[in-house]
Amino acid sequence: MRLSELSRAAGLSPTTVKWYLRIGLLHRGQPTAVNQARYDDSHLRRLRLIRALIEVGGLSTDEVGDLIAAIDDPHRSIQNILAHAHRASAASAGTKAAASAAPIDDYIRHRGWRVRADSPARRDLAAVLDAIAALRPQPASGAAGVSAEVTTPDTTTPDAVYSLLDPYADAVEPLAAAEIANTPADLPRDLLVERVVAGTILLERAIAALRRLAQEHHATKRYGDPKAPADTP
Amino acid sequence: MRLSELSRAAGLSPTTVKWYLRIGLLHRGQPTAVNQARYDDSHLRRLRLIRALIEVGGLSTDEVGDLIAAIDDPHRSIQNILAHAHRASAASAGTKAAASAAPIDDYIRHRGWRVRADSPARRDLAAVLDAIAALRPQPASGAAGVSAEVTTPDTTTPDAVYSLLDPYADAVEPLAAAEIANTPADLPRDLLVERVVAGTILLERAIAALRRLAQEHHATKRYGDPKAPADTP
Repeated sequence: MRLSELSRAAGLSPTTVKWYLRIGLLHRGQPTAVNQARYDDSHLRRLRLIRALIEVGGLSTDEVGDLIAAIDDPHRSIQNILAHAHRASAASAGTKAAASAAPIDDYIRHRGWRVRADSPARRDLAAVLDAIAALRPQPASGAAGVSAEVTTPDTTTPDAVYSLLDPYADAVEPLAAAEIANTPADLPRDLLVERVVAGTILLERAIAALRRLAQEHHATKRYGDPKAPADTP
Repeated sequence: MRLSELSRAAGLSPTTVKWYLRIGLLHRGQPTAVNQARYDDSHLRRLRLIRALIEVGGLSTDEVGDLIAAIDDPHRSIQNILAHAHRASAASAGTKAAASAAPIDDYIRHRGWRVRADSPARRDLAAVLDAIAALRPQPASGAAGVSAEVTTPDTTTPDAVYSLLDPYADAVEPLAAAEIANTPADLPRDLLVERVVAGTILLERAIAALRRLAQEHHATKRYGDPKAPADTP
């Protein structure tokens, strides 16, 4: 197909597709004339992957570029690409805080997980624990006589971290195990990679959305049905 | 405390704190002299909340501003603030795609959930389903003889959507129910609000990080331990 047809099929403007070609996110087509090329199904699939990563995954074009480079390198292992997908996804969560690593090292031992020392998910989790600890009222301040226990989860001891995180880890670990187990190892590499990337980044958004819908449902059950629209007092 | 002490305690530069005062993210201190004011624990707590939302939650200062305005409005219900936290969090996921709503309406009926028609989580979930559908190879293209079933999840029928999403919804719904049930209703409002916001946005990052760690662990179990660092082929 021609560039105009490719753009239309991918739901993108020709300008955007030309830009992706220029910066190397999309591989070149088969030249047919000066300034003309023919594109095939592999181009359409790649554009749909890029669109999903940017529009749903929230990645920047730079992050997508790094991930595409890993995908296109035939020497990369599937785990290496998974690590890249994790890194792109973690960076987009905006985790810039220098976070304390020791409680996370302990927690990963507690779960019996084998994960790389430089996994970005460690840093993400450490940043969350640090943020929760910072929000917890100091005992000295005594915040209007309210004890800290009822307001912000305790993260000051290993046991407190286990109590906070274990229900979440227990819920997601069987899902993650099934995701890995259900990936057919004999797929052609490009399809395998798409599946891993889609499974990692897109389903992460789905899980977050499902949790928010369930929170809203249970809040409505507890506090009643708010008749007024959300922006009316 | 003075502005310099407040900044140090919050781990922010005085310039940043002054900027938050100027744009109204942080409430003014008690004036003590021309160009001097005294700040208290409420300022420190607010700065820590802002920092957590920006650095860990990945929200923009505009999104934090909207959320703070909702928090500071004494007429807002807890559900209304939850809705604002959801909206801020969803917008930061970069969901701009026009997504089809019908499969999500059906799925929410299937779960028996009562959620508002304008919940941003609906749009997030619809965008994920659309992206997965776009990545699925067309039967006509026949992608090297590989059947579509083994590559990308099916989302073309209600039953296929249930099969894809139910394991995730089953895993997160009890957690969401416990989060709502464990929120003490008689807390002072500012602490209640912090807890809801922290529970919604920070734990969402924690869940994503735990899933990625568990994925990495199970990938290592399946494919072996990659000795080489992630960036070496």
